[in-house]
Amino acid sequence: MTRVVRVGDVLIGGGNPVVVQSMTNTRTSDVPATVEQVRRLIRAGCEIVRVAVPDMEAAQAIREIKREVSVPIVADIHYDHRLALLALDAGADKLRLNPGNIRDPQKIREVAQAAAERGVPIRVGVNAGSVDKRFLKNGEVTPEGLVEAALWEIQLLEGVGFHDIVISLKAHEVPLTVEANRLIAKEVDYPLHLGITEPGPGMPGTVRSAVGIGILLSEGIGDTIRVSLPGDPVREVEVAWEILKALELRERGPVFVTCPTCGRAGIDVAGIAEEVRRALSDIKKPLSIAIMGCPVNGLGEAKRADYAILGGQGYGTIYAHGEVVIPKVPEKRLAEELVTLVLREVNGI
Amino acid sequence: MTRVVRVGDVLIGGGNPVVVQSMTNTRTSDVPATVEQVRRLIRAGCEIVRVAVPDMEAAQAIREIKREVSVPIVADIHYDHRLALLALDAGADKLRLNPGNIRDPQKIREVAQAAAERGVPIRVGVNAGSVDKRFLKNGEVTPEGLVEAALWEIQLLEGVGFHDIVISLKAHEVPLTVEANRLIAKEVDYPLHLGITEPGPGMPGTVRSAVGIGILLSEGIGDTIRVSLPGDPVREVEVAWEILKALELRERGPVFVTCPTCGRAGIDVAGIAEEVRRALSDIKKPLSIAIMGCPVNGLGEAKRADYAILGGQGYGTIYAHGEVVIPKVPEKRLAEELVTLVLREVNGI
Repeated sequence: MTRVVRVGDVLIGGGNPVVVQSMTNTRTSDVPATVEQVRRLIRAGCEIVRVAVPDMEAAQAIREIKREVSVPIVADIHYDHRLALLALDAGADKLRLNPGNIRDPQKIREVAQAAAERGVPIRVGVNAGSVDKRFLKNGEVTPEGLVEAALWEIQLLEGVGFHDIVISLKAHEVPLTVEANRLIAKEVDYPLHLGITEPGPGMPGTVRSAVGIGILLSEGIGDTIRVSLPGDPVREVEVAWEILKALELRERGPVFVTCPTCGRAGIDVAGIAEEVRRALSDIKKPLSIAIMGCPVNGLGEAKRADYAILGGQGYGTIYAHGEVVIPKVPEKRLAEELVTLVLREVNGI
Repeated sequence: MTRVVRVGDVLIGGGNPVVVQSMTNTRTSDVPATVEQVRRLIRAGCEIVRVAVPDMEAAQAIREIKREVSVPIVADIHYDHRLALLALDAGADKLRLNPGNIRDPQKIREVAQAAAERGVPIRVGVNAGSVDKRFLKNGEVTPEGLVEAALWEIQLLEGVGFHDIVISLKAHEVPLTVEANRLIAKEVDYPLHLGITEPGPGMPGTVRSAVGIGILLSEGIGDTIRVSLPGDPVREVEVAWEILKALELRERGPVFVTCPTCGRAGIDVAGIAEEVRRALSDIKKPLSIAIMGCPVNGLGEAKRADYAILGGQGYGTIYAHGEVVIPKVPEKRLAEELVTLVLREVNGI
């Protein structure tokens, strides 16, 4: 069991639900663009948002961003500890420091004292791509080296009485990330922030993140997660939620049960599922929806799901709560009929 | 360590590399369409292909399909054991039987004897959606119930001296699937075929599959995998390979290291990565390609990767094998220059 760290009004660790994070990719000093992206992230289920702080303008923008949105804001700091001090002044709810590039113990202690005065936690975020040379083993990044880099920075923070710490150890490599987190989980009781860093674009990045984060969470390791994907960060939040839903750690909106379709399928399962998924994307209530192409597994899954379509040849039967509600609907109207039924029940009409 | 089962010329189990499978969704009796899809699956890296056998025409089509393609073909049988006998006659390299719907012990034994004569293995494929009522606990599918359903069918096969068996226990639910496979792995030494069944469309299905299959493989459980997704089955093979690559169990083609981009990024990482990924999709040689938006982690990752782009503001530096090879390339030409470099080296020109 990890200790609890408070970020704004969000609790991380200590058995609290695993928190979903993401990071904006707007220029932070472009306040309207950043605020708009933060709002989109919140709608998708993001609970903590990080912003890059590469310069003074970005640090100062945090004050204005926080006036517009209610989610806790984390300032991502590299190289220059003065940006951390400015971000704290601007009201950042958490700092992320990278021990690979703020190496002066005095500067780190100065930031810790300023954070402590404001009750703001610090994430010690070690990345394989920027780990300090002191922690390489024969020039290689190792799980032990990532752990040592984190422990070195933690000791500096603890040395000034600062314990409001979250830790992340990230690498592109899944086995390296998994092993490093297993090791640090045995060493400290600070909450762990999980992620696979730079995991690749689109599908490959999604798969690597799901495998790495999934393995650690299944072992009870990890208190907050951030999926890193290039492009629109809303995608990161969607993938993060699917990982948590897959492990039955948290619930949010529909879970779909769709057969992969084979030579038996009598309806376009993929097309119908996508249409239903889009139409119900704003629903937060947890429910299961099965869309199955034939009776082999379809009969069983239709009865187990909250709502279902069981395909015949060119038509389908609609189920709700294990019972047939509309026996024979033409394929073209299946998605629409199911969506209408679900929305009516969910909205209590 | 599981025992080894031979499917055509492919070995499953016993420490052999984890085998990638998929299933066609054409009408199997439409031989030209099925052959074309099988060929696309092979090009994507599929090593065993399953086809649905819902009728006699499908069973007989296996003979013609096998004349056209070299990959082992598995006949997927439900309800009617005579289709299994026909598929064996037609040259199927493996049978998949579902204990949920061929319940007559005498029929199962008859199929086993016919398979044994031809040296053809049988997969006992238990699915939560079609598990026989005898194996439900208070009407619910449980890990123990899935295991019992498999053991019941295995005992029938073993009773006639048949041991050429692969087992799969699949559910839509990841924890149920994971737990069932952990249990059966302790009970038997037959190779295990892993998958999350009916995991949902697109991204959700990809995430659920990666989490479930990833957890089991990371524990050393699983000898062959099939990702189940609606739509084009080539996608299943691509996701399966990414799972194996993420766990460093197998290698195939490029692994991408891409930063998620934040307010620091000076180039369009997602766009460049996608362009490079497409241009190199036919490469089978394992290599790592980093595409990074700024120097924070970019400098380290560029040096660690086989090939890299390290972004500046509107331009980038191209690295190969840890060294700068082209110092300053305008953003628009980055993808093209990198692709040219990689293709030249890979093709030895």
